[in-house]
Amino acid sequence: MTSDPRDTRTVFWDNGQVCMIDQRLIPFEFKINHYDDYAQVADAIRTMVVRGAPAIGAAAAYGIALAARISRATDVASLQADLREASDVLAKSRPTAVNLFWAINRMNARAQELIAGGADADSVRAGLLEEANKVADEDIEINQRMGAYGAALVPDGATIIHHCNTGALATVGWGTALGVIRSAHAAGKHIHVLVDETRPRLQGARLTSWELQNEGIPHTVIVDGASGHYLRRTKVDLCVVGADRIAANGDTANKIGTYNLAVVAKANNVPFYVVAPFSTIDLSIAHGDLIPIEEREMDEVLRVNGERIAPVDVQAGNPAFDVTPHEYITAIVTERGVIYPPFDVNLRKASE
Amino acid sequence: MTSDPRDTRTVFWDNGQVCMIDQRLIPFEFKINHYDDYAQVADAIRTMVVRGAPAIGAAAAYGIALAARISRATDVASLQADLREASDVLAKSRPTAVNLFWAINRMNARAQELIAGGADADSVRAGLLEEANKVADEDIEINQRMGAYGAALVPDGATIIHHCNTGALATVGWGTALGVIRSAHAAGKHIHVLVDETRPRLQGARLTSWELQNEGIPHTVIVDGASGHYLRRTKVDLCVVGADRIAANGDTANKIGTYNLAVVAKANNVPFYVVAPFSTIDLSIAHGDLIPIEEREMDEVLRVNGERIAPVDVQAGNPAFDVTPHEYITAIVTERGVIYPPFDVNLRKASE
Repeated sequence: MTSDPRDTRTVFWDNGQVCMIDQRLIPFEFKINHYDDYAQVADAIRTMVVRGAPAIGAAAAYGIALAARISRATDVASLQADLREASDVLAKSRPTAVNLFWAINRMNARAQELIAGGADADSVRAGLLEEANKVADEDIEINQRMGAYGAALVPDGATIIHHCNTGALATVGWGTALGVIRSAHAAGKHIHVLVDETRPRLQGARLTSWELQNEGIPHTVIVDGASGHYLRRTKVDLCVVGADRIAANGDTANKIGTYNLAVVAKANNVPFYVVAPFSTIDLSIAHGDLIPIEEREMDEVLRVNGERIAPVDVQAGNPAFDVTPHEYITAIVTERGVIYPPFDVNLRKASE
Repeated sequence: MTSDPRDTRTVFWDNGQVCMIDQRLIPFEFKINHYDDYAQVADAIRTMVVRGAPAIGAAAAYGIALAARISRATDVASLQADLREASDVLAKSRPTAVNLFWAINRMNARAQELIAGGADADSVRAGLLEEANKVADEDIEINQRMGAYGAALVPDGATIIHHCNTGALATVGWGTALGVIRSAHAAGKHIHVLVDETRPRLQGARLTSWELQNEGIPHTVIVDGASGHYLRRTKVDLCVVGADRIAANGDTANKIGTYNLAVVAKANNVPFYVVAPFSTIDLSIAHGDLIPIEEREMDEVLRVNGERIAPVDVQAGNPAFDVTPHEYITAIVTERGVIYPPFDVNLRKASE
């Protein structure tokens, strides 16, 4: 790890602790939080120290490794009981991102495999840390593969609208949709990014513009309501977004505001790409309206930087995600290539 | 004038001064600003002490009356020269709202009429103040007429999405789109309003929710990006918005974010109504893309309550308005009734 934020992973293991960049402080402060209990890791996910589906997945994997480390179990049965408890606590931290459940399942499957192979408690501990590191390493590798596939879809000179933050900060490193932008830039393409600020938590204005500024990629922050104006009145070549969960038919849950962007993009014949690793695809869910949508506390809407922006005692609705029906999605960029409609057929085919 | 904010006009004349509720301070403070120079009135329009197309129109009318009052002219020719100078300064304050130009023209036409009738400078002064008061009185009367026409379109038990602020504060009193909501409530209909917060200046969260709270009308503040989620997943019966300028074909310029709302409303088969007085209709402009769109300073996007929300040195785009093409508009509610498509024919017919 260096002092350059670009070289720091969003979530990593250091000396028996799970460490995370505190994303609530960016762009004003760069601080690493250290956790020595999995309940703290669950809390960090819940309070959005770490966010973004792939980063949440890696954080949960490290949370399980941490649970194994702090467990006092000397036999594998007790260790498994402790892992089950930790899994329950971690699984409750956020409901929408499927990577969370994917990572927890992967870690528990690995523990079971090790135990079936005759491992003792300490070997399971070591194996789980190794697996969490693998989840993290693979995430970066997968992102760079998606970046290469996605960059091929970006014309030289493109103007791109991006919603929320899907960069290094939303993943372990590199990024999904913002990884595509980064890869296009790295390939020498001249691009300009219109950065949706992404109310209520302003991940676009705070995190995406910070990442693009660090990378020297030209961009302009706009309010979410302005995307249609730019799509209609200026040249916009494509929209790219990430995903928190993709149903079997391609319906995609992503940060609130994604659906509005997709609908105005389609009204203006601008391609709309979802960029996400296969761990985000949930074939067990037939369509998007079955995806649980997290409702977060009102104060995220009614306050900015802690300061109230509305009268005292008014109510707010704060769904953290929305679902974009598959008919608004041009293609889904994954680490196995670009998947086009019909998604119900092609997602299943690609996952085999 | 009483101490109840509901009884206070947004803009009014008091003892030789133009007075305005300072809308930048609501909902946290209720303060009346006093101006004794028309340049201050222009500045108040520019800095959004007063905003909303009809209120801007009334403020400009009073600005002309104030220019007449402070002019040292003793003959009508010098007075007219002073009025021309004031008209130029006032006309430069905001480019999009056509009511501004409508009010300035009406005031100058009245001056000319009085002069043609043999009035001296002091009679012109008195006549212009009378005319400005008439503009203001008529605005409230017109709004209540629109409210009655519009309320007939609101089913009992309706959920309504409203964008920006179009209430008493956006007019001299009562309101346009919010006037329809107020009229429906006054008629005993049970309604619930989803209040788009309206970034960047948060007129929905700050002003509309304050007005609805004062009136005891149930409502929920949502971020602009959430409108599609509610339109798709919950029962929404209609959307109502105001207008800053309506072209001859019905294309409507209104607060940034209106177009996005209109497109997602149409995608979900929810009626989308524009509520505006005839003074907002500009038959001299064939279609919406000819309407000038004001670009405001970046800091409105990059700061909230003065606090920075994005990294230092990033750029922002801040178009204050967008244009909703007429095909997304179900009907335009005016003081002469509800106008349906084809707007190019029916707007012209109604204006005769």
